[in-house]
Amino acid sequence: MQSLRRQIDCCIDHYGNGCIGRRHPLIVRPRPHLFELFFIIKGSIVLRIMPLLVFVAGLSAAVVSIYTFKPDWLPKFDGGPFALLGITLSIFLAFRNNACYERWWEARKIWGEFMLTARNLARLSQILDTVDGQVSDARKQLLQHNIAYAYAMLMQLRPSDQLPKIAKLVSPAVMAQFRQSKNPPEVILRAMERILIAALRDGAIQPIQFNLLEELIQKLALTQAACERIQHTPIPFGYTLLLHRTAYTFCFLMPFCFANTLGWATPFVTALAAYTLFGLDALGNELEEPFAPIANALPINALTDIIALELREALGETDIPPLPLPEAFVLM
Amino acid sequence: MQSLRRQIDCCIDHYGNGCIGRRHPLIVRPRPHLFELFFIIKGSIVLRIMPLLVFVAGLSAAVVSIYTFKPDWLPKFDGGPFALLGITLSIFLAFRNNACYERWWEARKIWGEFMLTARNLARLSQILDTVDGQVSDARKQLLQHNIAYAYAMLMQLRPSDQLPKIAKLVSPAVMAQFRQSKNPPEVILRAMERILIAALRDGAIQPIQFNLLEELIQKLALTQAACERIQHTPIPFGYTLLLHRTAYTFCFLMPFCFANTLGWATPFVTALAAYTLFGLDALGNELEEPFAPIANALPINALTDIIALELREALGETDIPPLPLPEAFVLM
Amino acid sequence: MQSLRRQIDCCIDHYGNGCIGRRHPLIVRPRPHLFELFFIIKGSIVLRIMPLLVFVAGLSAAVVSIYTFKPDWLPKFDGGPFALLGITLSIFLAFRNNACYERWWEARKIWGEFMLTARNLARLSQILDTVDGQVSDARKQLLQHNIAYAYAMLMQLRPSDQLPKIAKLVSPAVMAQFRQSKNPPEVILRAMERILIAALRDGAIQPIQFNLLEELIQKLALTQAACERIQHTPIPFGYTLLLHRTAYTFCFLMPFCFANTLGWATPFVTALAAYTLFGLDALGNELEEPFAPIANALPINALTDIIALELREALGETDIPPLPLPEAFVLM
Amino acid sequence: MQSLRRQIDCCIDHYGNGCIGRRHPLIVRPRPHLFELFFIIKGSIVLRIMPLLVFVAGLSAAVVSIYTFKPDWLPKFDGGPFALLGITLSIFLAFRNNACYERWWEARKIWGEFMLTARNLARLSQILDTVDGQVSDARKQLLQHNIAYAYAMLMQLRPSDQLPKIAKLVSPAVMAQFRQSKNPPEVILRAMERILIAALRDGAIQPIQFNLLEELIQKLALTQAACERIQHTPIPFGYTLLLHRTAYTFCFLMPFCFANTLGWATPFVTALAAYTLFGLDALGNELEEPFAPIANALPINALTDIIALELREALGETDIPPLPLPEAFVLM
Amino acid sequence: MQSLRRQIDCCIDHYGNGCIGRRHPLIVRPRPHLFELFFIIKGSIVLRIMPLLVFVAGLSAAVVSIYTFKPDWLPKFDGGPFALLGITLSIFLAFRNNACYERWWEARKIWGEFMLTARNLARLSQILDTVDGQVSDARKQLLQHNIAYAYAMLMQLRPSDQLPKIAKLVSPAVMAQFRQSKNPPEVILRAMERILIAALRDGAIQPIQFNLLEELIQKLALTQAACERIQHTPIPFGYTLLLHRTAYTFCFLMPFCFANTLGWATPFVTALAAYTLFGLDALGNELEEPFAPIANALPINALTDIIALELREALGETDIPPLPLPEAFVLM
Repeated sequence: MQSLRRQIDCCIDHYGNGCIGRRHPLIVRPRPHLFELFFIIKGSIVLRIMPLLVFVAGLSAAVVSIYTFKPDWLPKFDGGPFALLGITLSIFLAFRNNACYERWWEARKIWGEFMLTARNLARLSQILDTVDGQVSDARKQLLQHNIAYAYAMLMQLRPSDQLPKIAKLVSPAVMAQFRQSKNPPEVILRAMERILIAALRDGAIQPIQFNLLEELIQKLALTQAACERIQHTPIPFGYTLLLHRTAYTFCFLMPFCFANTLGWATPFVTALAAYTLFGLDALGNELEEPFAPIANALPINALTDIIALELREALGETDIPPLPLPEAFVLM
Repeated sequence: MQSLRRQIDCCIDHYGNGCIGRRHPLIVRPRPHLFELFFIIKGSIVLRIMPLLVFVAGLSAAVVSIYTFKPDWLPKFDGGPFALLGITLSIFLAFRNNACYERWWEARKIWGEFMLTARNLARLSQILDTVDGQVSDARKQLLQHNIAYAYAMLMQLRPSDQLPKIAKLVSPAVMAQFRQSKNPPEVILRAMERILIAALRDGAIQPIQFNLLEELIQKLALTQAACERIQHTPIPFGYTLLLHRTAYTFCFLMPFCFANTLGWATPFVTALAAYTLFGLDALGNELEEPFAPIANALPINALTDIIALELREALGETDIPPLPLPEAFVLM
Repeated sequence: MQSLRRQIDCCIDHYGNGCIGRRHPLIVRPRPHLFELFFIIKGSIVLRIMPLLVFVAGLSAAVVSIYTFKPDWLPKFDGGPFALLGITLSIFLAFRNNACYERWWEARKIWGEFMLTARNLARLSQILDTVDGQVSDARKQLLQHNIAYAYAMLMQLRPSDQLPKIAKLVSPAVMAQFRQSKNPPEVILRAMERILIAALRDGAIQPIQFNLLEELIQKLALTQAACERIQHTPIPFGYTLLLHRTAYTFCFLMPFCFANTLGWATPFVTALAAYTLFGLDALGNELEEPFAPIANALPINALTDIIALELREALGETDIPPLPLPEAFVLM
Repeated sequence: MQSLRRQIDCCIDHYGNGCIGRRHPLIVRPRPHLFELFFIIKGSIVLRIMPLLVFVAGLSAAVVSIYTFKPDWLPKFDGGPFALLGITLSIFLAFRNNACYERWWEARKIWGEFMLTARNLARLSQILDTVDGQVSDARKQLLQHNIAYAYAMLMQLRPSDQLPKIAKLVSPAVMAQFRQSKNPPEVILRAMERILIAALRDGAIQPIQFNLLEELIQKLALTQAACERIQHTPIPFGYTLLLHRTAYTFCFLMPFCFANTLGWATPFVTALAAYTLFGLDALGNELEEPFAPIANALPINALTDIIALELREALGETDIPPLPLPEAFVLM
Repeated sequence: MQSLRRQIDCCIDHYGNGCIGRRHPLIVRPRPHLFELFFIIKGSIVLRIMPLLVFVAGLSAAVVSIYTFKPDWLPKFDGGPFALLGITLSIFLAFRNNACYERWWEARKIWGEFMLTARNLARLSQILDTVDGQVSDARKQLLQHNIAYAYAMLMQLRPSDQLPKIAKLVSPAVMAQFRQSKNPPEVILRAMERILIAALRDGAIQPIQFNLLEELIQKLALTQAACERIQHTPIPFGYTLLLHRTAYTFCFLMPFCFANTLGWATPFVTALAAYTLFGLDALGNELEEPFAPIANALPINALTDIIALELREALGETDIPPLPLPEAFVLM
């Protein structure tokens, strides 16, 4: 493993600041050792669910105290039915986590397609360059609109002010429409379409090549539609509600069932069970919103920057900034 | 989280009434706090299954009373076999819920594709506009038919009277056919096809561009076929029947098994188990019909309106009404 | 729910006998009430597995009798290992049912695609009509062959005599080949191809439009290949065998394990467990053959009729029979 | 069911030896009755795992003897931890079986696509026939190469000497390359490509139709690449190893856990559990290699023959041999 | 099975060193016999997790000693709650392993597509050869760039110095860009695009054939984008962290729960359970990184070599080295 990492470094030397891919994992961290494992906070969801764990452990301690010192105050339960409830809960938590993970992974696939489409456009649009090695106006405009589209997408998915960057890349007329439209990214795509239609009418491209470029624009539009779908259609709320209610009730009843058999180990064991259940639940919540600005979400800021860098390189620019680097193990 | 929401608001300010996507989640609600969680009714299915929960709890109380005061009246059961039945039931409920969720999610994907196709058509059909910045007749008709098609789909999926809206958008001849046909939405698509064929014969588009537009019409038709499939082919009825029967029997037997070990906690525990089992079951029923007019279904009324708004904007209309807003946290 | 149904009825009034989709669910039945649930026979598989349930209950009664009156005749078992076996069995039954359900759903998707392709062909082939509003000969032949193809598919998937219907739609030469061929539906597609090639050579369509129509014919062929795959490749037999053997053995051993703890409730509980296990198994068997003429299979007779009706409507015929209706809640 | 079978027979009468699909299920057998079920050997994997079952039963008998007659020789175990291990094992066996089944089903899909592509080629290549009803040379060569390709695939997937059959279908020059190449099937596809390119240069087909035929050749190549992937990339070996080790250890420990509670029923119960676990495991092994010459594998010999028969029929040959029939319920 | 292997050998004789596919399984090994199974190290992950197993066994021995000789020192636990935790853990381990396996299998599919695209390019580019049987310059350059692209991909996925091989295949100008670019493989694809555009402008290919070749280049680009996605987006770290923590805690608590009931068998049983849990976990880790240079990863070095060999054969080279062979059962 170590030798591999050294190989990676040496490969980066070969390339200058190459090996592009190497730089967009989400949480960039070597696999931790056993005891490190228990003290990692970043990327863990332990802080978020800590109050609950403390509450469950405290409740357990109270229940054990009562069972020990005032055994008559509380009835004695058997763990059997709770085990049944616990397994049911696990099965459904697993199902929900699976659904959330697939949303997250689909979102990553969509952005991979997005980057691919940008590269395909940069490559195929060379057909617009009539003089060898010199970028034609139409091609330059197309790729700049593509960069603007990436920032418009980022602005929609992770609200932030990308307007100045976009304003530099498109014409004032398009920018005006962009500000007014109910669907701003689409305004940019429509402008790209008009560039293509103009090229077709000028005879710069043939009808059949228009089709190839049109397909790429439709793929850019697909990116937006698919991201919107994931962003605005969470797992049905009734579902989340049902699981949360059951999980909370289960954790609050646990001490009463296990105090009898586990004694003073109860607070520890119930806190561990609560950690697993609520940890998985909280992780599901994070994966459910793959574009939110949180540690386990997708690094779409970085991906947008990489798309911009690659397109600028394709346009022959040379003063390209370095690739985005993770801060505190996290790439946003 | 809070700061994010504020960012969203500020982004809306930038755009006018922008950030379109932000407005079509199903049940729009910030994540509730712990104790709120237990008192949310909207989007929850608790009201629907309440009679059953009361019945199970009452039955449990009766059984415990008998065990306590007349222990000879009823035999004593062991929970083991019921735990086995319960796990089996959980596994199959999980499987059914999974199947229902995937239907629901596929339905959402289909509508996402629908919206994408409408946008692609609005964008690509600019090729029909000969004078720059002026919408040609053919293009206007195409997009109006697309809006009419969206209302025809809505009318089929969530029965309601959309005929006046459609009548304004298509010619009287098409409308007459629409009223008579066994497959009304198809009538609109056939009219769109004829517009394209006329444009081809007039030389307004070249044969290869006809193909691109034809593909979009076939995608519109795909939307209808896929929605029909989901709407009219539920999970096999024998399947639903088997699971319901087993779940009901299981809940009615539970008190007899657990009364012995749980005592007076039995009514509470059995009601909780019934809540989880029937809650998941009821939720599965809701997701099984993603176009029905219920809280956890898809907001296809709103999606249809958004498609109409976007196409009208593409046609250069300026008096566009605001985007649909959720009422009481729910968007239909 | 009630109001929705009324809306549906009113929508049917608007359309004449419209709302086509509304008529091909498999088992058309409003959601039953609780107590109805236990007395529904149609679509249930309870009759098929009744002998087994009676046998298991009888065996249980015998075992309980022996334990009660001659406790020395039989050894006493503990339920633990059987619970383990039961859970294993459940997991694998769930896996098999999942596989069967996916076959069934894939079959439904294929038929959805089939209907879609027929509609696309009816719509796109308008390009063959030179005089507005008048169906050309080539187009008429194409669509009639498409109807014939649908009946040929039905004949292969659910053996029945559709030859007279087909003979009316194709030329005697094609019919003669159809009778002799080892792959009759393909004969019809080859005839369609020749119609297209003739249209191409006559100049009725341009080469690029030939491609569009050719794609649709390839999609029709895909339907056949995909249905054949599902029809002729069941779940591996060794798999079904293993699960059946384990399930039967499990049910026959159950009484010996539970008689001890459950007493006279054993016959009821074991019959319930057997009902769940064998019910799921029998349902899996039904879904495994989605084209077989059984209640939970797909209504391919009705779907074929609908394809025929829609194509005849597209050809301008006016004496079209009403859509197929379910009999005794079932649509075949 | 009976009446259905009679209908099938009658349908075969209609078609001559028609109803092609009816003849390639893997293991062709009517659903067995209950007691037949326990004595079916063919397609069952019971023979393969019999030695293990005998060993486990013998070990169990020995352990029970010791517990009964020399209770001090062995410590007494509780079944709890083993139940846990057993459930874990079941979950992972289910996962592996699922993965194996999906490989097997994917392999079947690939061969379905293969057959479909051969049919599409036979149909579309009619465009090469200039005289009506007479097969052109180019078309004849194309289809013969397609047959040769099917045998070359079979030769690679289920090693056997198909060279004489191939030699009759391709030119000696192609055959010489075929014998030398590191990728023989590709040699045939390259020869097909050259036939198409020649037809294009001769003006027999137009450029756009070349594309349609080229797509079919790429689909033939896809078949090979996908089959190679499945054939040469088994489930990771470490995975299989881990599950086998755990399963064996589990079965050898079972007697020690259950002998105490089950007494002389132990040998039977442990053998049943071993049968289920190892049966599923062995079945997974069979499905993992869907092209191996074993009973539960895919009937690719028969599928290849059917492709050859259909293509020969398309070429107008009349002395076509009957379709392959299963021997002893199995079609290879 | 033996006879099959002999058939394979004889098939290799037929082909010279043919049967290409036969040579890229990952860990090439005949199915081991029962007792061999327990002593296989290669491809097993037992060495990696050995320290942990020793620790768990040692801890168990210590706990049993204390329970036996100083029963008052430690409280007595019941296994119930731990069984619950264990099942939950199993369900989530299964889910994670499933996700990892699907990444691994998707990576294999991508490389299968890569090989297919290289073959398609080698075959289709024959259209560039004007003189029969003689490779044109443009075609030679295209295929050499394709080989270079394969090595560039390998260099990115499994860092190693492939620069000398690449430098021999592309022009110095492209090589200079390659060394500087932030996305080196893309540089090669852009050079291929320029070769195609030149061929189009020279009239060597028609516009519609340019489209076919362009599609293949886009598929090559897809390979890179998809591999980058898998390489740089691991399973969310918080997820891995949660499961590891729970698994470790579970294994450390196990002895305390089972020591009571299992006595001196505890070290063995807990070590077995730890072997299963951590073995699956470690295997998941290996599959999560399908391009890493480890035994269960994909043999992408060998696949790259095979692509190079096949393309060189297509170019008519005759001094082609033999196919890569596994060393010590493993193919890298």
